[in-house]
Amino acid sequence: MNMTSCTETFWYDTASKTYYVIDQRYLPHEFIPVPLRTIDDAAHAISDMIVRGAPLIGITAAVGMLVAVQSVSVQNIPSIIEVAYQTLLSTRPTAINLKWALDEMRYRILENPSVESAEAALKYIIATETQAFRDIAKHGVTLLRDLAATHPHRPVQILTHCNAGWLACVEYGTALAPIYKAHEEGIDVHVWVDETRPLNQGARLTAWELGQRGIPHTVIVDNAGGHLMQKGYVDIVFVGADRVSKNGDTANKIGTYLKALAAKDNGIPFYVALPSSTFDWQTENGVMQIPVEERNASEVSHVCGWDGSRTTCVQIIPKNSPVANPAFDITPAHLITGFITERGIFKATVEDLQKTYPEKF
Amino acid sequence: MNMTSCTETFWYDTASKTYYVIDQRYLPHEFIPVPLRTIDDAAHAISDMIVRGAPLIGITAAVGMLVAVQSVSVQNIPSIIEVAYQTLLSTRPTAINLKWALDEMRYRILENPSVESAEAALKYIIATETQAFRDIAKHGVTLLRDLAATHPHRPVQILTHCNAGWLACVEYGTALAPIYKAHEEGIDVHVWVDETRPLNQGARLTAWELGQRGIPHTVIVDNAGGHLMQKGYVDIVFVGADRVSKNGDTANKIGTYLKALAAKDNGIPFYVALPSSTFDWQTENGVMQIPVEERNASEVSHVCGWDGSRTTCVQIIPKNSPVANPAFDITPAHLITGFITERGIFKATVEDLQKTYPEKF
Repeated sequence: MNMTSCTETFWYDTASKTYYVIDQRYLPHEFIPVPLRTIDDAAHAISDMIVRGAPLIGITAAVGMLVAVQSVSVQNIPSIIEVAYQTLLSTRPTAINLKWALDEMRYRILENPSVESAEAALKYIIATETQAFRDIAKHGVTLLRDLAATHPHRPVQILTHCNAGWLACVEYGTALAPIYKAHEEGIDVHVWVDETRPLNQGARLTAWELGQRGIPHTVIVDNAGGHLMQKGYVDIVFVGADRVSKNGDTANKIGTYLKALAAKDNGIPFYVALPSSTFDWQTENGVMQIPVEERNASEVSHVCGWDGSRTTCVQIIPKNSPVANPAFDITPAHLITGFITERGIFKATVEDLQKTYPEKF
Repeated sequence: MNMTSCTETFWYDTASKTYYVIDQRYLPHEFIPVPLRTIDDAAHAISDMIVRGAPLIGITAAVGMLVAVQSVSVQNIPSIIEVAYQTLLSTRPTAINLKWALDEMRYRILENPSVESAEAALKYIIATETQAFRDIAKHGVTLLRDLAATHPHRPVQILTHCNAGWLACVEYGTALAPIYKAHEEGIDVHVWVDETRPLNQGARLTAWELGQRGIPHTVIVDNAGGHLMQKGYVDIVFVGADRVSKNGDTANKIGTYLKALAAKDNGIPFYVALPSSTFDWQTENGVMQIPVEERNASEVSHVCGWDGSRTTCVQIIPKNSPVANPAFDITPAHLITGFITERGIFKATVEDLQKTYPEKF
């Protein structure tokens, strides 16, 4: 188990001519690469949460489209594209980057049906998202620079929920992008990491990737954030997003809304970092309209971790108790201080959204 | 493993002349009785959370005082009482019932130092708390009756955090007392059970005790409550308390504050049920003054559950990631709709507290 060399969430293996992703369900204790050879491989990777995080879901779906194109002769590309599109779109309902990536792939491939088009389309998606993450980092770090200037004798204290780092994306990530950038600039930061039940993406993934890059952090249960904010131990909150509606309401990992409420109650700035591909301009009102995925009960009834020699799952509820498992919640725009996208930092108001994305209004 | 006959959290075994408690760390998967034979047995049971829940902590401490008295000759009772008092008081800092029970025991024993006095004092404490729980049930059920009348064609939806049922107390419990009473009266109820990380008292204990009494319930992660409230799936929130200051600020299991914020944001009534012994009349401002216990990191870094054949603990965070583990948070009084105590239901305002407990002001 050697993971220190891994700084990418997916990669192309030239020997086998295959794209691979990390099976993130087993991190940080086991490093298991999974090949994406077929549409079903990609669909399974998304629906079973081998990969997760809105941007990476989009990229994995795009790889699914590419391997679909590679599997047929040129005249069959349009029909396989439809099959791949529908199969991949149905994997998860909330993250909108999935639809964005599939739409871009389909449009670009059908313009000139060929493997080359598909490869170019995938490259475009990866390049677009990667540039977005760099720009998010560049804009977001200004907030941390300001906080560091205000509190020169202690670290800037950031709280984050779930994982919106490079494991959810590529390179920098979204919510963690300004933090990585600040760390590179020598700004003293410390990150409170919500464990993020049920699947513990914070405890498993965010803590691990911060650790890999030497960034000071502390893992807390999801219940602890309000208390820390009340006691003055949090300067700013950064989260990612799975879908943002036209009015600024933000779907993100379940529990985000509770942290936004606590930030508001304690006068702490609450920022959502996202590439523009996460906006859903077709949905007017997020609280009313964004569908929230209900996932399998076993994610709540069982917790998986390292038992000393392997990954083991233990049951934490009584045998006959029912479970509900909504995977996302919607944070109303009025609780959000601002968005950080590749176009800059702006308020979570319709006015500012319109000013920043005039072509969408 | 037969637990269906267990409906008491502690009991006196006449054959061995010994008090026993359930080791709640292993519920619901294993039923392990633990004898309280010495002061240290009682102290260990409290500090290691073999028992938990403010009322049961108080009663266990009282048993510790009784066994201390039983262990010495009459002339040594005053000195052993001091040793027991200090040892037991230092076990946990937040729950105030602990101090209340110890003060009552010491006062009543020292009036007439004897084993009989100690036994009578313990009986007094148990009787006081038990009567309080019955009265809390009687008052609290009126809220559920009203909600049932408002929504005659569906269950009344209650959300609760942590465990404030009979496992935390005796007989009815506090937050769950009105629910048990409503169920007895034939009112259709359904309980959303927060799992309550880090120690999962909700998932393990509340779900189990509700199941034992046939009350419909659903286990959710702590992150889910805000979403359920936003979607209209919660009619009322009931929680217990570990300490309430003179201004109504309420210390309870970490995460309670986040649920109170969400209830406020969605116009959902949020009630704290407690025996009067949970008020700390010496503390003016809870948010500023109530000490919050920081517990062991392993409670966060590891999750324990049933692996199919035994209780196993698995590590859920990277090896080198630090952890913080505050065990309680303080919900400011302005977020609380009301208190339910043996004296009735009243608002969480200084005015109403003064009206209800005039002798304390």
